[in-house]
Amino acid sequence: MSNMIDTILARRSVREFTGGIVSKQDICTILNCGRWAPSGLNNQPWKFVVVQERDTIDQLSQCTHYRDVVKGANVLIGVYLDTDAQYNHTKDILAIGAAVQNMLLACEDMGLGAVWLGEILNQSDQVNTILHTPTSLELMAVLAIGYPVLKERTSHRKDFGEIACNGMFGKPWT
Amino acid sequence: MSNMIDTILARRSVREFTGGIVSKQDICTILNCGRWAPSGLNNQPWKFVVVQERDTIDQLSQCTHYRDVVKGANVLIGVYLDTDAQYNHTKDILAIGAAVQNMLLACEDMGLGAVWLGEILNQSDQVNTILHTPTSLELMAVLAIGYPVLKERTSHRKDFGEIACNGMFGKPWT
Repeated sequence: MSNMIDTILARRSVREFTGGIVSKQDICTILNCGRWAPSGLNNQPWKFVVVQERDTIDQLSQCTHYRDVVKGANVLIGVYLDTDAQYNHTKDILAIGAAVQNMLLACEDMGLGAVWLGEILNQSDQVNTILHTPTSLELMAVLAIGYPVLKERTSHRKDFGEIACNGMFGKPWT
Repeated sequence: MSNMIDTILARRSVREFTGGIVSKQDICTILNCGRWAPSGLNNQPWKFVVVQERDTIDQLSQCTHYRDVVKGANVLIGVYLDTDAQYNHTKDILAIGAAVQNMLLACEDMGLGAVWLGEILNQSDQVNTILHTPTSLELMAVLAIGYPVLKERTSHRKDFGEIACNGMFGKPWT
């Protein structure tokens, strides 16, 4: 199996970080992979905000139940939907999901750990105040990134028979 | 640069196919990469339907302006949101975007070409009739997959200064 497919299958959410500093070059690579996601009519409906200042990270950690995860990260990337670039709401959200996945895979590939935080969206207003977010932007996710504490991270997925059909619905993929 | 990041940056939509047959093993790899995407609370809100029968492909080609792209493909994968598995509508759509991106990257990595079709969603009812789709499922995308006609495929992305900020909004990333 290729390095790429290996990486897709091996990627796990990382919630414990060593405190090592993520280089600017690595952050640029993450952003670059994010922006090369596909989008409907190539409208690129994403905006990213990179947070490295300790004080801002600490403030953002107060916006989620996963306080310790955020506090432990070296970099946060806020991922936004730019409603000014909007083409179709559902398709734009799908494109942002693709961009997030590219960024998570880039992290995994470079030996960084990352977790996609969704619960923090419950406190979007508070996050947006901290980040001076324009009203045209809608918070989609926050990625917490850092060097991973090394440990086994297991996960599971549904069987093909549960999620895939062959030819049409009603005929499970085997 | 790694093979994985190379692949992320090199991936382009492929709309012209040679007619070569995609193996079952490759289709399984594509589905496996799709299901290993992350999702909120690991709810895995996706369903996939793999279409290889020529007659069904021809019927589906009538549901989109991109008729020739669909007709030229060797495999179609319909990607659905399973509302029975729903956790949060926006976060579920984001997860499906991540799953689609994993599948597109798997194709690219295996030397297959693929294009993410969104316009076909305008004819979801017609697609769902052809595929016998349960009412609990919502069409998110169709991937058209095959061996690519080899040619240069260019694309472009916005500059970092347009899409990324440093620390907070109002301070462009440079």
